[in-house]
Amino acid sequence: MGNYLALIDLGSNTARLVIYYDDGQGVIREEDNVKRTLRLISYLDENRRITTTGFEKTLECMHQFKDVCTAWNIQHIVGVATAAVRQAQNGHELLQAIEDATGISIRLLSGEEEAHYGYLAVVNSMNVEDAITVDIGGGSTELTRISQRRCVGRISLPFGAVSLTQWFLNDSGIPPANDWKRLFDYLKQQFGSIDWLERQRCPVIAMGGTARNLAKIVQRQSQYSLSSLHHYEIQRKDIDSVFTSLSQLSIEQRKQVPGLAKDRADVIVSGIAVFRALLEAAQSDTLITSNKGLRDGILFEQVLQKENRSRIDDVAMHSVGQLMRRYRVNIPHANHVRFLAMQLFDDMKQLQLIPYGNFERRILEIASLLHNIGLAINVYETSQHTFYMLSNILILGLTHRERILIATVAAYKNQKQFQKQLAQFPDILRKEDKQIVEKLGHIVLLARILDRSMTQQIKSVRIKEKNKQLVIECYSAEENLMEFSFIPEMLEKLSKLWKLSFQYKVVGERKRAL
Amino acid sequence: MGNYLALIDLGSNTARLVIYYDDGQGVIREEDNVKRTLRLISYLDENRRITTTGFEKTLECMHQFKDVCTAWNIQHIVGVATAAVRQAQNGHELLQAIEDATGISIRLLSGEEEAHYGYLAVVNSMNVEDAITVDIGGGSTELTRISQRRCVGRISLPFGAVSLTQWFLNDSGIPPANDWKRLFDYLKQQFGSIDWLERQRCPVIAMGGTARNLAKIVQRQSQYSLSSLHHYEIQRKDIDSVFTSLSQLSIEQRKQVPGLAKDRADVIVSGIAVFRALLEAAQSDTLITSNKGLRDGILFEQVLQKENRSRIDDVAMHSVGQLMRRYRVNIPHANHVRFLAMQLFDDMKQLQLIPYGNFERRILEIASLLHNIGLAINVYETSQHTFYMLSNILILGLTHRERILIATVAAYKNQKQFQKQLAQFPDILRKEDKQIVEKLGHIVLLARILDRSMTQQIKSVRIKEKNKQLVIECYSAEENLMEFSFIPEMLEKLSKLWKLSFQYKVVGERKRAL
Repeated sequence: MGNYLALIDLGSNTARLVIYYDDGQGVIREEDNVKRTLRLISYLDENRRITTTGFEKTLECMHQFKDVCTAWNIQHIVGVATAAVRQAQNGHELLQAIEDATGISIRLLSGEEEAHYGYLAVVNSMNVEDAITVDIGGGSTELTRISQRRCVGRISLPFGAVSLTQWFLNDSGIPPANDWKRLFDYLKQQFGSIDWLERQRCPVIAMGGTARNLAKIVQRQSQYSLSSLHHYEIQRKDIDSVFTSLSQLSIEQRKQVPGLAKDRADVIVSGIAVFRALLEAAQSDTLITSNKGLRDGILFEQVLQKENRSRIDDVAMHSVGQLMRRYRVNIPHANHVRFLAMQLFDDMKQLQLIPYGNFERRILEIASLLHNIGLAINVYETSQHTFYMLSNILILGLTHRERILIATVAAYKNQKQFQKQLAQFPDILRKEDKQIVEKLGHIVLLARILDRSMTQQIKSVRIKEKNKQLVIECYSAEENLMEFSFIPEMLEKLSKLWKLSFQYKVVGERKRAL
Repeated sequence: MGNYLALIDLGSNTARLVIYYDDGQGVIREEDNVKRTLRLISYLDENRRITTTGFEKTLECMHQFKDVCTAWNIQHIVGVATAAVRQAQNGHELLQAIEDATGISIRLLSGEEEAHYGYLAVVNSMNVEDAITVDIGGGSTELTRISQRRCVGRISLPFGAVSLTQWFLNDSGIPPANDWKRLFDYLKQQFGSIDWLERQRCPVIAMGGTARNLAKIVQRQSQYSLSSLHHYEIQRKDIDSVFTSLSQLSIEQRKQVPGLAKDRADVIVSGIAVFRALLEAAQSDTLITSNKGLRDGILFEQVLQKENRSRIDDVAMHSVGQLMRRYRVNIPHANHVRFLAMQLFDDMKQLQLIPYGNFERRILEIASLLHNIGLAINVYETSQHTFYMLSNILILGLTHRERILIATVAAYKNQKQFQKQLAQFPDILRKEDKQIVEKLGHIVLLARILDRSMTQQIKSVRIKEKNKQLVIECYSAEENLMEFSFIPEMLEKLSKLWKLSFQYKVVGERKRAL
């Protein structure tokens, strides 16, 4: 049986309540997500004390969050607070007041802990070996250094998008060049003191609202074809250009910029300045945005503790497993289609029918596991739904190109359909991808037909070449299988398309030696 | 707890195995659907006995079906057989042989029963008062007359698409005009003897493979924008034109016609001839295709028997309820959004802010119940998923226009999005629909915000006009609700868009008098 849990994140800029459903079998999915732009850090007075208004606003918000948790009948509320509370002289008083008034216990994270959760979010949601991570909050900025998937450096710096704006750009108009110079000098000095950061020339992975919003702006400008912020790569020159244009706009003008969130219009430019300064210091050319951050790090910690390990090894396969359970894929069938597809791929490769390697094999593996996910929408037009779902739902640990290839291969039905699908993503795909999708798509189709009854009665297959004929040997105890009524038509199609001659043969019970 | 059941339909042209999942709470959904074009009726010899080959082919197929049922661990198999078995001298021997060999017990339906199931399928899946239904099988054709939703006439005629082709067009080439004349004379005489059919001038609702295939051909020809065969209206002139072009093509040429199923290329034209003759006899101008037929009639009978009623009264609302359960909509929230939306609609109508009546009210009602269905796909971009699901999943009892209006209103987010969505369906929508969707979309958005916390704490609303201001009175015991943090922004937006001034007011605990 599953249960709901709530995570309250009392940030320096934003307070958020996220409701999750934990199905008790390894799938935790977001159910609701309420955001209030409280901007707590702006209620710090000159003595670094949260003002009475700050107390009131926060308590009002926490009351509302608590009501929602009560309505969902949620017992398990995880609350965390970050820089604003950390930096306030009376931060603990605020947390005590929240607990007294609502019963919600909020844990104050140290900067180190915050950085650690950022690392956990990235390493468990991306296939990344070496990188710098950055999380710009309202009142602090966390950095970590990932090397061979381990965290080898972490730091929390005491400035964020809101505080930098207050300190350097305290102006609702267009800041003069000198303001920017002072800001960049400050950032340069801050980053200059971190020895594991300078001139690392590795990708910078950015979490948090500023990063997501920057990615949205760049995507809207270029009319990017995929609506996904996770693992979106932004080039340094594009960041520079967004910065230059935004820094010349008033706050009101910025609110009209496509993709820019109105409630960030005042603080986003100093946030982008942080990215610029960081890329400069690290001499990196690419920023990759992560849709997973602090909250996800906390969830990953809980899951990993239960499973007694320090991180997820194969992020993509773990995420695929979650999707399969969430959308109730027939798992024995999906695993068997994968198994047969892998046998077909390996034999075809050996016979030099396909020129592909590990990259394509992995695409095929994941696509064959997910080929039927569209059934969660409907039994009719399942292939179309599979494509819709896989091109719209996040699979962790994959690049955008990998995601589109998997979606198209999994949903492969015919020539016309896949070409139409690929044509939607010209900015993501490469020239060779059409050929890849076609070949791998045929293999998935054939593997599916080989288990059309979903009963795994064709135990395994082997392709043999005899007199220019390709014979697919099907290892099965039973000769009258539904599969054998459908295989001939499929092989006829395949023979035409590949300009080869495919046949099949039933070869009795014993399983192919592996 | 739910369970799986299987339905085996041993038709004269096609044998089908359909696996259903019955969730035990009123939702029965299709999980798999395997079709074999057995063409059993073509194995009747000159003595109307099924040949040995016919026995063998059928038994082989039933063995395969049984294996699949076993693999799904299905105990409950419902089997039915129709015209081919009915017309065969040794039909009962075949059914006995199937039971002996596989344990599957197949019930032989009478023509009357077959017609009755067709009626049940249509009356429980369409909002139809008066109609003639027709189901062309391989070896028989069933007709019923529906008047005020009751079945007032039914008949089974002893010819179908396969047998007509054998009798009149026994030729793989292009039949000469005289063959067609003999066929039409025969059909005219057959239909002429049915007194409740002639000159009824009501729509003809067509089930079965021929009807679905005809609809597909017409949709492909006109590049119809919605991929749905249920409640698709075909004009008589379009049927005539498809008939004329197909009857001049050889079977091989027909296989190239977009939408035409290759395994029907030989028999489809005589099937279309039946529709022509029937429309002629009934003096009807419209054929409406139904995606629901015999199998669905059998399922409806089972469900209705349990619920002790003879038919579903409000087909659309029943179907909406099924979707809500299947896709795990938060039902108290959805019902409350509907309730608030209805109050807003009625008050706005009274205040003459909207010029709409029952048609639009119904669209709003269903859209507000389903506004969150996209959550079944993902919590991100839910509105987009809601639109995708509602424009791709069949809701029974609605026309195509109604379905698109509901999808767009339910998913309403902003100007740009809904106009893009509507633009996809120029052949279905009317000029006034843009305005309808916009107004109703705003009402759903407002109703959603009024229950943003999903806790139903704003019990009800009333709109009052005071000094040219529209005040939305919100009846709530609690003044610090999350809703009240979001309502002002929404009303500001609405005031701009409607060029009016909306305000809100909290008016204490007591519920609005209904």
